[in-house]
Amino acid sequence: MFAPVYLDHNATTPLDPAVREAMLPYLDARFGNASSRHEYGRQARDAIDRARARVAAAVGAHPTEVVFTSGGSEANNLFLKGAAATMKPGVLAVSRMEHPCVREPAKQLARLGWQLEWIDVMPSGVVDSGQYAECLAKRPRMVSVMLANNETGAIQPIADLAAKARQAGAWFHTDAVQALGKVPVDFRALGVHAMTLSAHKIYGPLGAGALIVDKRVELSPLIAGGGQERGLRSGTENVAAIVGFGAACELAVQRLETEAMRQRSLRDDFEAALSDMQATVFAAGAPRLPGTSFFAFDGIDGETLVGKLDRAGFACASGSACSSADPEPSKTLLAMGVAPELARSAVRVSVGRGTSAEDMNRLIQALRQEVQALRGLAAMAV
Amino acid sequence: MFAPVYLDHNATTPLDPAVREAMLPYLDARFGNASSRHEYGRQARDAIDRARARVAAAVGAHPTEVVFTSGGSEANNLFLKGAAATMKPGVLAVSRMEHPCVREPAKQLARLGWQLEWIDVMPSGVVDSGQYAECLAKRPRMVSVMLANNETGAIQPIADLAAKARQAGAWFHTDAVQALGKVPVDFRALGVHAMTLSAHKIYGPLGAGALIVDKRVELSPLIAGGGQERGLRSGTENVAAIVGFGAACELAVQRLETEAMRQRSLRDDFEAALSDMQATVFAAGAPRLPGTSFFAFDGIDGETLVGKLDRAGFACASGSACSSADPEPSKTLLAMGVAPELARSAVRVSVGRGTSAEDMNRLIQALRQEVQALRGLAAMAV
Repeated sequence: MFAPVYLDHNATTPLDPAVREAMLPYLDARFGNASSRHEYGRQARDAIDRARARVAAAVGAHPTEVVFTSGGSEANNLFLKGAAATMKPGVLAVSRMEHPCVREPAKQLARLGWQLEWIDVMPSGVVDSGQYAECLAKRPRMVSVMLANNETGAIQPIADLAAKARQAGAWFHTDAVQALGKVPVDFRALGVHAMTLSAHKIYGPLGAGALIVDKRVELSPLIAGGGQERGLRSGTENVAAIVGFGAACELAVQRLETEAMRQRSLRDDFEAALSDMQATVFAAGAPRLPGTSFFAFDGIDGETLVGKLDRAGFACASGSACSSADPEPSKTLLAMGVAPELARSAVRVSVGRGTSAEDMNRLIQALRQEVQALRGLAAMAV
Repeated sequence: MFAPVYLDHNATTPLDPAVREAMLPYLDARFGNASSRHEYGRQARDAIDRARARVAAAVGAHPTEVVFTSGGSEANNLFLKGAAATMKPGVLAVSRMEHPCVREPAKQLARLGWQLEWIDVMPSGVVDSGQYAECLAKRPRMVSVMLANNETGAIQPIADLAAKARQAGAWFHTDAVQALGKVPVDFRALGVHAMTLSAHKIYGPLGAGALIVDKRVELSPLIAGGGQERGLRSGTENVAAIVGFGAACELAVQRLETEAMRQRSLRDDFEAALSDMQATVFAAGAPRLPGTSFFAFDGIDGETLVGKLDRAGFACASGSACSSADPEPSKTLLAMGVAPELARSAVRVSVGRGTSAEDMNRLIQALRQEVQALRGLAAMAV
């Protein structure tokens, strides 16, 4: 079978073979419901407990601070809507570059009477600290800023932002879905009240995520029922996915240092070639995830280029994969002040554990060809 | 490895080998994010489309009426809270024997100003149609009654209840999680506006469920974000689980008739033996799921008996497995007017595709021994 080169690791990652091995018994003989009080149930419960300890250890949290969810979107919704349900409506501050699964629940809260303040992003791709201070002066009850942006890879100064939010009396949440496994993530060192994680971004399975949450944060469950996850997330636990999440967390920590170095080197070589081709690399000056390049060729539509690369055997993203149904240009780029026309040219290449230097050299070759051809067409059209 | 006889199929079911085969490629080379616009993404999207058609076909619905969720609990919460979010608070009617994942969101709505009316259950285990009419006279905006009870297996006259609710102007929802695969389930014939399904109750995986919903019902998403599932359920789709759900639905329909007959025969023989041992079988006179027996030995604690059977190599349930953290006797039995003392004696045996007559004969032997021993102890204690 023809397998295109996969360069979209910020959208999802292949399952690590060791993670799959860890999961398979729970798709077979160990199929019990973790709430059942018999041998099958105990096996499932024990497996969840072990996975909880692994996830907690990977981010320096206590196992009792881990609330398993079906994924990152659910965890982000659980924090925002779950915390809001325990308070009177007030001010909520959210950055303009958040993933839709933070932006959309924030907008739902705005319709319920919350005053939504948007935290600005500087052209560098990092939150505007001056405007952030103005947001905090409005005394928000909750603040949410992502640890690393899914499109640019720009890393935000969360420890600093969270400290200021604490001083202002707000609960601070960070979506760490893109950061986990790529840069060190420490719940205590960041000083946040809540943090979202996802398994499928770290070579774990779809169907598992977590909200790491300080016990002082009162939450109302989004999914109420049987009382699983300390009453914060009901529903029969997806044991195989949770086991895979635990295994993936352990591997992510083990491999972080060598993979970050290796991926940064692939990325830097790739961006040197992009520079030769007169591409714009977004957030190039910001602290960034090691394996993410978000770039644009002026005058070449991003969707079109991604389609050409797809046919040439390279799987890349234009805008954010998770919201590809959205025809608008990237909200992150618009927030950074990038012109809509250039934003429409954006393409994202995110490398991963399986990406080789050979893959990247072939990608560069293909890009040169496609860009030249598209520029030729554009020139003819003038 | 010692494998106890599994007799808790209403809690969860083992994965059918054919379902596992269908899933494995999506835990391997076909790992793409269904929102991605490249080959990996298209494979995932196509797989979800095929699964959606299979789930819809299994219940006589249209594929566009299927909203995939992480499971039954989420689907029940999505209906109740999602529909409520689009209306002014009014009356909500829910039966007293609903699963906690219907009861608890109903109670959350009551705290938001909804008037919660409980629909009574008769000693037979079936909804009280006279008191139901009184509930409808209060003009509820929403009604939720399960198709088959998870504990007694009693099947409710949903087509009739739904028709009356429609006439009264209410949206009618049924939790069909326990019915699917055990009795025919037809969305149109039932005439309900919304219906909840779960994969792991039908030899499919944990992590997939669905709300089948009439397009006229306006819903606000519980999990908002990237806009997946027509904006009703955001989050990267759990492709492998959804594929497994589709395969499990297809098998469930194919095997329904022969399995129902086979399981009913096992159940009837088992209940004849229970009768010999002077056990009470709950809802024995009601139309029931073919493979469920919910019974009690007067004076013998259900938890204790289940523990003894567990040590003897039989995995059964006391009360409802999904809420085993709850030390209260079964709410279904209390609603039926069963004395709390007898309700505390309840044990559930739910057979499945893998259960043999030999398994049941061994269970009967073990039950005779344990009951005799426990009765001896009880007699000595007097």
